[in-house]
Amino acid sequence: MKNNPASSIPPAQSAAGMSVTEALAAMSRGSLTSETLVAACLERVEQRDGDVRAWAYLDREQALAQARQADRSASKGLLHGIPVGVKDIIDVRGMRTAFNSPVYPHYFPSMDAGSVAMIRNAGGILLGKTVTTEFANREPGPTMNPHDRRRTPGGSSSGSAAAVADYQVPLALGTQTSGSVIRPAGYCGIVGYKPTFGEFTRVGVKQQSGSLDTLGLCARNVRDAELLRTVLIGTDYRPAPLPERPLRIAFCRPPEWEQADPAVRRRAEECAALLAKQGHHLSEPALPADFNGWLRIHSTIANFESARNLAFEKTVHRHQLSAKLYQGRIRDGENITLEQYIAAQREAETLRTFIHQYMENIDVILTLSTANEAPIGLDDTGTAVFNSLWTLLYTPCITLPAGFGPSGMPFAIQLVGRRFEDEALFAAALLVEEHIADR
Amino acid sequence: MKNNPASSIPPAQSAAGMSVTEALAAMSRGSLTSETLVAACLERVEQRDGDVRAWAYLDREQALAQARQADRSASKGLLHGIPVGVKDIIDVRGMRTAFNSPVYPHYFPSMDAGSVAMIRNAGGILLGKTVTTEFANREPGPTMNPHDRRRTPGGSSSGSAAAVADYQVPLALGTQTSGSVIRPAGYCGIVGYKPTFGEFTRVGVKQQSGSLDTLGLCARNVRDAELLRTVLIGTDYRPAPLPERPLRIAFCRPPEWEQADPAVRRRAEECAALLAKQGHHLSEPALPADFNGWLRIHSTIANFESARNLAFEKTVHRHQLSAKLYQGRIRDGENITLEQYIAAQREAETLRTFIHQYMENIDVILTLSTANEAPIGLDDTGTAVFNSLWTLLYTPCITLPAGFGPSGMPFAIQLVGRRFEDEALFAAALLVEEHIADR
Repeated sequence: MKNNPASSIPPAQSAAGMSVTEALAAMSRGSLTSETLVAACLERVEQRDGDVRAWAYLDREQALAQARQADRSASKGLLHGIPVGVKDIIDVRGMRTAFNSPVYPHYFPSMDAGSVAMIRNAGGILLGKTVTTEFANREPGPTMNPHDRRRTPGGSSSGSAAAVADYQVPLALGTQTSGSVIRPAGYCGIVGYKPTFGEFTRVGVKQQSGSLDTLGLCARNVRDAELLRTVLIGTDYRPAPLPERPLRIAFCRPPEWEQADPAVRRRAEECAALLAKQGHHLSEPALPADFNGWLRIHSTIANFESARNLAFEKTVHRHQLSAKLYQGRIRDGENITLEQYIAAQREAETLRTFIHQYMENIDVILTLSTANEAPIGLDDTGTAVFNSLWTLLYTPCITLPAGFGPSGMPFAIQLVGRRFEDEALFAAALLVEEHIADR
Repeated sequence: MKNNPASSIPPAQSAAGMSVTEALAAMSRGSLTSETLVAACLERVEQRDGDVRAWAYLDREQALAQARQADRSASKGLLHGIPVGVKDIIDVRGMRTAFNSPVYPHYFPSMDAGSVAMIRNAGGILLGKTVTTEFANREPGPTMNPHDRRRTPGGSSSGSAAAVADYQVPLALGTQTSGSVIRPAGYCGIVGYKPTFGEFTRVGVKQQSGSLDTLGLCARNVRDAELLRTVLIGTDYRPAPLPERPLRIAFCRPPEWEQADPAVRRRAEECAALLAKQGHHLSEPALPADFNGWLRIHSTIANFESARNLAFEKTVHRHQLSAKLYQGRIRDGENITLEQYIAAQREAETLRTFIHQYMENIDVILTLSTANEAPIGLDDTGTAVFNSLWTLLYTPCITLPAGFGPSGMPFAIQLVGRRFEDEALFAAALLVEEHIADR
């Protein structure tokens, strides 16, 4: 973020600027309380909310009360006293869930989502609900990119990415069915992580596509992301060691490569060259031709399932759904036959086998996070074409900030790991983060 | 049911005794209204509820009002005017969901589950909520087997199976993570169906294990089950034709074969012999030795995921959870490492490949539905050992009644189809149902 010419500068002398690791260390030294940290985040929100509009629900007193309780508490969980934002399709008890839709104006869930309960158990403070696109689809909310308020923050986890990038909260939960964590994190210049499909609990998360929906997270650095991941997996914390031998990196150009802006492609190629120069083994294997049809496979599965999963909303609240959601997804999904859906599920499994073979002698794939710098306009959250392939393949992904582009907006690169090998992906990401910082 | 010596005799001269197909035909002839049908079911409930206790929530007036509305409605969906019971872990707007637990005494969901919305859209009448075991786990509810009230109806879809078997409702929704549809349907002597994993929407269903939970259904014959399946898939109705050539049937003895009662095994063998005699091709291929560890694989996945999915309940309501749930599942799941979970997921995928190969030249597997006739006692819902293998393998399953055993309780056999080939399974089940009826 240091090169950022315009905005979203870390707040000077405010705890809101701290990383999670720094804040935890300061709290354990006694030089910081959770109340101070939460108050600093709330102050930052107050200063910046008119320019960013990342929050759908915020209860200042509730957040401060949680923080004071953490300060009094003897047990120190992994996220003790750390504020976390929660995408507004994920339930937090005592906070309204509204899905960026007029459909449920008064829905105050009586249960926490599984992920939220795990964050509470680890001592985390639920700061508030972050803006989502409508039911995590395409119709955007009011959130602006903190680097340039004329530009989209990406979506659907718009508020989570923007709030973390803008130092309003150090961590936030998002979800990805197409590109809803990686793209906004890339557009906002932060770290985004989508785990191997199925590893994070999805209880209490509004479902769109059971075969694709993946809980993910936003953070400002890889160690912070790793900490939240550990809490969400529900196991002991074992910081990934930096890899001891050079990484075997595949630079991957998916079939849609030419759709990306040349500057974004060039930046990814520069990062690859930089890593090769630092001694890592770079290869550029082509994806098999079987991958050419993946977009249709993804949308067949997503739309077929959405039409059924949103059966209640489409019946009872049809006129309150956007055209993007109703025509673009639900109606399309209703017209998909069971045979087409099954064929797509089978093809998806074949592609998962192919990517496993592709990665056999590779530690990590390096590819694009986004097709462009965050575009001007708030009506559209940008294309997910460089993200949904990996959602379909169930592979873990991390996006890392990679400097700034010609428009002054963040560049990002995406690292993709082998399915079920998220810890190796984190190890690689720690190294790459170090290598490409400020270069 | 005709041989049943004891109880659960179809109510004479009551619409409650009709199959769905019969009721639909009568309504379309004008000789039956939905109100009459629903009133007949409610009357049956009233007569029998003290002996069966299948219902967790029932609103007589609400059900009759829906029926009268259906009678006035011009549009005729596939389930026009047909009452359906819903397992009490599945949300119905306006009816309490209580999960057979003291944890949520006042939870009235504001949204229908996806499946429930689809049933409403097809003209179905939501009769009420059927008793589940605690959060669809092992701690039973008050339901008794309608054939013998000293005996378990099985679980976890206890009320759904018992109410359908007892002619209190012709159709009901259940769910299966281990054996929670097939076993109770088998114990109660009705048809149970668990589709290929993922084909029915799970929105609004309390999640236990995202990798295993499967929505399923109870009916009194295969055609009725097929009709409800069509509604839940959300496609046009295309009744499966009876197979034209002889079936290729594999008689399968899973590793736990010897744990089943000899009478149950013998009955399954008799059914196989009967089908062979009628010209079907019977083979008895052994499962590869790789299947010996499947029980551990299933419980590793189920318990790891349950511990995370029930994070809220285990934190806030720990003392209201049964020992079976808390010690037996959640605590066990907390002690499973991520590595063990991932290994189990990989092994499960390997077994899915093996069963695909095993079934390459086979139309349907014939195997046990239950280990025994429904045992005496209401403290335990019986073993799921002959069901959870198929849940793990994602294959579609249908249980069919197969006469009565030495204790006068229903026998059942299970047919297993190839994953994604549920229509072929239905075709086979129609034929087998015809062959083994009353033999």
